[in-house]
Amino acid sequence: MTTADHPGKAIVLFSGGLDSVTVLAMAQAQGYQCHAMSFDYGQRHSAELDAARRLARQAGVEHKVVRLDLDGIGGSALTDAALAVPEQAQEGIPITYVPARNTVFLALALGWAEVVGAQQIFIGVNAVDYSGYPDCRPEFVSAFEQLANLATRAGVQGQRFHIQAPLQHMSKADIIQAGLKLGVDYSQTVSCYQATAQGLACGDCDSCRLRAAGFAGAGLADPTRYR
Amino acid sequence: MTTADHPGKAIVLFSGGLDSVTVLAMAQAQGYQCHAMSFDYGQRHSAELDAARRLARQAGVEHKVVRLDLDGIGGSALTDAALAVPEQAQEGIPITYVPARNTVFLALALGWAEVVGAQQIFIGVNAVDYSGYPDCRPEFVSAFEQLANLATRAGVQGQRFHIQAPLQHMSKADIIQAGLKLGVDYSQTVSCYQATAQGLACGDCDSCRLRAAGFAGAGLADPTRYR
Repeated sequence: MTTADHPGKAIVLFSGGLDSVTVLAMAQAQGYQCHAMSFDYGQRHSAELDAARRLARQAGVEHKVVRLDLDGIGGSALTDAALAVPEQAQEGIPITYVPARNTVFLALALGWAEVVGAQQIFIGVNAVDYSGYPDCRPEFVSAFEQLANLATRAGVQGQRFHIQAPLQHMSKADIIQAGLKLGVDYSQTVSCYQATAQGLACGDCDSCRLRAAGFAGAGLADPTRYR
Repeated sequence: MTTADHPGKAIVLFSGGLDSVTVLAMAQAQGYQCHAMSFDYGQRHSAELDAARRLARQAGVEHKVVRLDLDGIGGSALTDAALAVPEQAQEGIPITYVPARNTVFLALALGWAEVVGAQQIFIGVNAVDYSGYPDCRPEFVSAFEQLANLATRAGVQGQRFHIQAPLQHMSKADIIQAGLKLGVDYSQTVSCYQATAQGLACGDCDSCRLRAAGFAGAGLADPTRYR
């Protein structure tokens, strides 16, 4: 049942990185009963999944890690060992783009949402810092919401799904400030594309640079644990 | 390169059942260089996957089986051992409906399509026999095509993806007749929701009934191997 006091259930796509940890805190602050969903998709940085498990436990939410072999599909520096993760920002769509990744993640979140009776799906996409990724744009998110309501038994039976992307238009500094107000401990989050098994960041990849610039922009000490 | 003589590459969602085997034959007859994609998603009938592997080999196409644990999500009699597969046709959306299944499958097909440079994705959905499944309807297929062109690097760069559902408005008897003209050997396909490990069909589930009625409707002997 969804009322003002009980807004209902939400699936939160949860990588264990800075953005998705902030999104989980936001969804919980809005009163949603959250179910966090992570993917083990052959990404190089398993430290991210360890962080996701730890942070979901700390947040007291149900957490599911779905294994899927995107590495078999290939085509991204994040999943294909033959491609190097670049240390410089690139023009256009980055090599770290994983083909159809957010489509796959949202599709699986939709399946879980239908099973647990959640009408909200939260995703930490951001059109400011990740403008190079087609599946981080507002038009992608809204097309997926339309699809969700055609694709499911729940949608056909009149239950509306909503894809919520609260970080969509926020800068990294704004995201960090919002998270800190909600009590997020960013020292626990892993953003680095090539973190060590212990979760230590390289400081050089796109993701590390964006994160460091976010703390600097917010006028805050960077709590990231670097190598 | 796509020309009249070389229509290009296609991903074919390929369960190894009657419908998808017919779709593969159709796509090959149209000249597409086909890549068949199957999913090991905790379905009860592993005989279906064995059939898919054998049939893809016979058709001479590249074949990928992606493992994903939809069984962890639950909610369907096809993946959840706690739910019985019904032996009678049901009103409304069947219990064999797997939440968001075709959305997940098409999303993964889209990722592979982008990597291999395929612009066509073939899916054997059918609005006649499977009208109870929301993700078999034409409006679902067209919403996914729209999403695909927003979700991907290829789409943003001007390459159009097309979701082809050639069986959409065909009866089972029509599908069988079309496949026979293209040389499909239906004795090799497995449709049963609860086939034995050897691929023997129960003859009682929805899928078996539809299939048997299709052969009867086409005035043909049913080559299905029953228990």
